[in-house]
Amino acid sequence: MPDETTLRVQAEALTKFCIRVFQKLGVPEEDARITSEVLVIADLRGIGSHGVARLRRYVDGLRSGMMIVRAKPEVVSETPATALIDAGAGLGQPVSRYAMQKAIQKAIEVGAGFVAVRNSNHYGIAGYYAMMALEHDCIGMSMTNADVLVVPTFGRDAMLGTNPIAVAAPADKERPFVMDMATSTVPRGKLEVYERLGKPTPMGWATDEHGVGTDDAHRVLENFKQRAGGGLLPLGGEGELLSGYKGYGLALWVDIFCAVLSGAAYATLVYPKTSDGKPLPANLGHFFGAWRVDAFRPADEFKADMDDLQRRLKNTPRAEGQDRVYIHGEKEYEMTEVYRREGIPLNPKVADDLKAIARETGVKWDL
Amino acid sequence: MPDETTLRVQAEALTKFCIRVFQKLGVPEEDARITSEVLVIADLRGIGSHGVARLRRYVDGLRSGMMIVRAKPEVVSETPATALIDAGAGLGQPVSRYAMQKAIQKAIEVGAGFVAVRNSNHYGIAGYYAMMALEHDCIGMSMTNADVLVVPTFGRDAMLGTNPIAVAAPADKERPFVMDMATSTVPRGKLEVYERLGKPTPMGWATDEHGVGTDDAHRVLENFKQRAGGGLLPLGGEGELLSGYKGYGLALWVDIFCAVLSGAAYATLVYPKTSDGKPLPANLGHFFGAWRVDAFRPADEFKADMDDLQRRLKNTPRAEGQDRVYIHGEKEYEMTEVYRREGIPLNPKVADDLKAIARETGVKWDL
Repeated sequence: MPDETTLRVQAEALTKFCIRVFQKLGVPEEDARITSEVLVIADLRGIGSHGVARLRRYVDGLRSGMMIVRAKPEVVSETPATALIDAGAGLGQPVSRYAMQKAIQKAIEVGAGFVAVRNSNHYGIAGYYAMMALEHDCIGMSMTNADVLVVPTFGRDAMLGTNPIAVAAPADKERPFVMDMATSTVPRGKLEVYERLGKPTPMGWATDEHGVGTDDAHRVLENFKQRAGGGLLPLGGEGELLSGYKGYGLALWVDIFCAVLSGAAYATLVYPKTSDGKPLPANLGHFFGAWRVDAFRPADEFKADMDDLQRRLKNTPRAEGQDRVYIHGEKEYEMTEVYRREGIPLNPKVADDLKAIARETGVKWDL
Repeated sequence: MPDETTLRVQAEALTKFCIRVFQKLGVPEEDARITSEVLVIADLRGIGSHGVARLRRYVDGLRSGMMIVRAKPEVVSETPATALIDAGAGLGQPVSRYAMQKAIQKAIEVGAGFVAVRNSNHYGIAGYYAMMALEHDCIGMSMTNADVLVVPTFGRDAMLGTNPIAVAAPADKERPFVMDMATSTVPRGKLEVYERLGKPTPMGWATDEHGVGTDDAHRVLENFKQRAGGGLLPLGGEGELLSGYKGYGLALWVDIFCAVLSGAAYATLVYPKTSDGKPLPANLGHFFGAWRVDAFRPADEFKADMDDLQRRLKNTPRAEGQDRVYIHGEKEYEMTEVYRREGIPLNPKVADDLKAIARETGVKWDL
């Protein structure tokens, strides 16, 4: 929670700071701009875990050579409705923006377009790319695989990432539908919050080193560090009682589309190491899609029905004790309005880290 | 559970029986064959709720005129990668098979293909259509909206269907990945099983007429009959603790793709009635997709990696007390082998119902 001592920064200033950092590290201006924009938009949407709090990882990745500073993405194969791109181990954001633009262009030309990306890195929030489709009256989709944290149903060890799925569809007077969801019950960050508070986590979030449900966030996080087993549970929780195999299936679907279809690393093969334990580029995969609405139906009819559907949901009677039924993306749009007006609250630890990055890279800290 | 008194019937004989019933009702031979095949394949896969147990509903729908016997599906719009089809209120299965074939044809031609269908009826199991892609070395997808049973997060009343998503991807030596999942935690049928056994259901399956979680299956089912409020919970359960809004988002996504994009009925508008309460055709919507694997990457490389990914998951250490980590579709493929060999066990109530249908339609019962 932000308090009076929390630094609040304007999105534009924060973006400019990130751009300067990336440029100092040798990233071309356009790539620096895109990557910074994706990070700050995550903060604006209230998804701080994927915002500038991650700048450190990109800085470290670029410095260590695990992320290639001036990567040249290459189109490996292409058809009217599809393409495969090799990211050349560069930053995930610029290649993903390029890939999504290509998917949208194909949707404009032939009705739908899909671009898979391999040999990439962390791409930020999945929703950013799905939302790129909106201004073209297209429906957008974006998926990525990720570092391995999630256990398959009945398995002991983490074998899959939190593998998010994002879908964005335009509306007219109402806001667009923007679903952007990890396929695990919760992300690792939620366990970290509970650990700091010393609170037991709800059952259904994670398993211990025996693969059995636990409410002990500290234990789960320690097990991650030591690769001791256990991990986050897929959406639906442990075993079959609440259908955890569905979340497991969604995560596997994402791995198949992002990695098996693209030739990227899947399952535990992401973030590989040499035989003597040195890290190699992550080789993550992404998948982007766009459907042009009026390839199916006039866009104004579609958008009018999107409004109507949303209003029916918003106006439906609430469950006892509840105020509001939300549409996906609604909270994030509202958050963005507040943060654009009042500035983005920077967690003191994140602010300290950004200042340290400023010092290390010789970029002026003026926020 | 089948016991000694359970009738076991061969898939082929059961299919022939259904075909004769449909033909007696005036359904053209090809449509009768497709619909019957989809029903019996559900039984073979162990999804009895979507098998011949549903024949009664189709018979009643065709007799009452809610399902048009000789419907002529019409292509409303088309681009190289997309099409929209109006099903003419006919049986859901024939138009869906046609739509999926069209999606596959487009994938063969331009890399990916998507077909939305409106003005349709219940189409059986979602997985059937996704799996049609497999023999063409395509990845298949299928979704449908459905009768309203699922409450949105924080809402009191059911506003969405159990809206399934199916995705099928080919492998080489291993079996294909076939995910076929309702986006609710469980289907209504599971509550019916618990009601019969007089057992409390797990929390996270359903809510009562106040929109509050309940373990009382009988109450939930009665509330459905009286439209008294409450319903099935989306995948992830009640509220936000286990991320039920994700299942709600998936269900909404399906409604947008199947109904808003196609112009079918969405949310509570499905299965409409006249102002004086007479039922009108359901106007359900479906969405089908196919991606040609080698539009991205050589199919043999993809399939080899699918094998490897599956083996890694199958060979991962098991959680304490568990025997096996499954791949989606694996149980159903194994079930199909058993039922093809030993016959499909027909629940006595279902067998009685089929006999009654035989009498009513004048079709010989010879199973």
